[in-house]
Amino acid sequence: MKIAAFAGGVGGAKLAQGLAHIVAPQDLTIVVNTGDDFEHLGLYICPDLDTVCYTLAGLANPETGWGRAGETWNTITNVEKLGGPAWFRLGDQDMATHLERTRRLKEGKPLSQITNEFCKAWGIEVTVLPMTDAPVRTVVNSDEGELAFQEYFVHRQCQPRVKGFRFDGVESAAPAPGVQEALEAVDAVVFCPSNPWVSIDPILSVVKEVNKPVFAVSPIISGKTVKGPAAKMYSELGIEPSAYAVANHYRTILKGFVLDHADAEMEKEIQDLGFATLVTNTLMNQFIDRVQLANDMLHFMRSL
Amino acid sequence: MKIAAFAGGVGGAKLAQGLAHIVAPQDLTIVVNTGDDFEHLGLYICPDLDTVCYTLAGLANPETGWGRAGETWNTITNVEKLGGPAWFRLGDQDMATHLERTRRLKEGKPLSQITNEFCKAWGIEVTVLPMTDAPVRTVVNSDEGELAFQEYFVHRQCQPRVKGFRFDGVESAAPAPGVQEALEAVDAVVFCPSNPWVSIDPILSVVKEVNKPVFAVSPIISGKTVKGPAAKMYSELGIEPSAYAVANHYRTILKGFVLDHADAEMEKEIQDLGFATLVTNTLMNQFIDRVQLANDMLHFMRSL
Repeated sequence: MKIAAFAGGVGGAKLAQGLAHIVAPQDLTIVVNTGDDFEHLGLYICPDLDTVCYTLAGLANPETGWGRAGETWNTITNVEKLGGPAWFRLGDQDMATHLERTRRLKEGKPLSQITNEFCKAWGIEVTVLPMTDAPVRTVVNSDEGELAFQEYFVHRQCQPRVKGFRFDGVESAAPAPGVQEALEAVDAVVFCPSNPWVSIDPILSVVKEVNKPVFAVSPIISGKTVKGPAAKMYSELGIEPSAYAVANHYRTILKGFVLDHADAEMEKEIQDLGFATLVTNTLMNQFIDRVQLANDMLHFMRSL
Repeated sequence: MKIAAFAGGVGGAKLAQGLAHIVAPQDLTIVVNTGDDFEHLGLYICPDLDTVCYTLAGLANPETGWGRAGETWNTITNVEKLGGPAWFRLGDQDMATHLERTRRLKEGKPLSQITNEFCKAWGIEVTVLPMTDAPVRTVVNSDEGELAFQEYFVHRQCQPRVKGFRFDGVESAAPAPGVQEALEAVDAVVFCPSNPWVSIDPILSVVKEVNKPVFAVSPIISGKTVKGPAAKMYSELGIEPSAYAVANHYRTILKGFVLDHADAEMEKEIQDLGFATLVTNTLMNQFIDRVQLANDMLHFMRSL
């Protein structure tokens, strides 16, 4: 079974790791959100791509889920001493990724090629693709006006109330080389448990059409997110945050939906939206949980 | 006594530190070579300015004389793992200087202003000025053709035989704000024990005229340099490397020359070039040696 998985940051990276453990490398393509990318300190930073790659390579910080394990902070500490912008905490190991990516981009290489080169250096065998090589930028419309995504997410710590989202540059952004080909070759598409508004929607806005069976995993469990502002965003947009709300968000394109045992009482309501459901453990604290969820999903998708 | 000191890297930084210890901050200006500056990994790197500032701030690595004390190397190690250029060993603390300088340069600030801001952040009270805010680049003409300075110095480890030097961009480069003013205000100019060919000559090529008494310290002791390729350069240019060769190099502009006890037998020959001499200890391994040499020089200059 060939699979393409759409992923944002930490939650997406965890399921991607689980899938990579049980699916043959040539049968798995991870398409990653780049709407959160930004330039900072002269560096081109791709938070979701890096989280996915670090996780797949076994380099990720197991405490935070993002950044590198065994990280040090000597550069950013000294940037701060010089009075420079230090609100985005770049670790010393992580810095190498941004420096070297920025250097290769300036040489004219597309992001997808650089990502491929990095994956080889890190020993990642599955295909990881940015959703696009073009600069698409998620802009958060908030009660304090429009904010660049990282300004909202990291600098302002998601405090402004959201009113909507815009993916700047999406009209002229083609999917990265390999994305369309992968979507044509696969048997199913998985939406990882990533933020629907700012992780999966940007990918969908670039890909535009998905003609394969789509299976989504709810990033919301018991009305809350494991990490990130998805639940807060639903609330601020006037929608009660829940697995149902996520299923409803994707209602036009789903074939199947995966929700946590904790939300089992919503299963019928979600089925009434018109698609199959799987109730299982979707919390992925440990590596074994990730593999288990990936395995459950494979069985679920094969059964349909 | 107001002093301007021209300095390159390690040797210059040591004497600058000695002078800073005994001269009032408002009476000392260090003018630093920027001919070695280069762009690497997208960063604007000023090796001599950084060595001088780190030394003055007490942040320098006491083993190497350049770079930061207590340095870590996590970024460059990871750049190397990604297959990026790692021949220029940038430490993690040091990286902050280059990142933040590059960011401010891109904002349109001149190098001299950024240097001033960094000095304040590092608690440096004397004035440190780049020789110019314009991009002047030392080019080494060698038996392998023309090489950018850091390519020759670090990447090729001074192995190509030199045939001459060129300071690219010097025709249109004005001295940085404050340099001309300092040279007008001072009682004497000190050439630190830096490389005459590639540290002091670039400064002179920008400053063009020095109308104050000039005192130089030989960077060559017993025919050798403490650090760097000055002696090798003299040999390859067909000149026997010696304190005399350095004195002769500067013969048109010197008032006094400082040489080491080890070269005392050359004193007469150097005096015959037409200037006063001081024979003293010019090796500056310890902080106390730096202060002692600075003190000896002050007495020498005052006596003339």
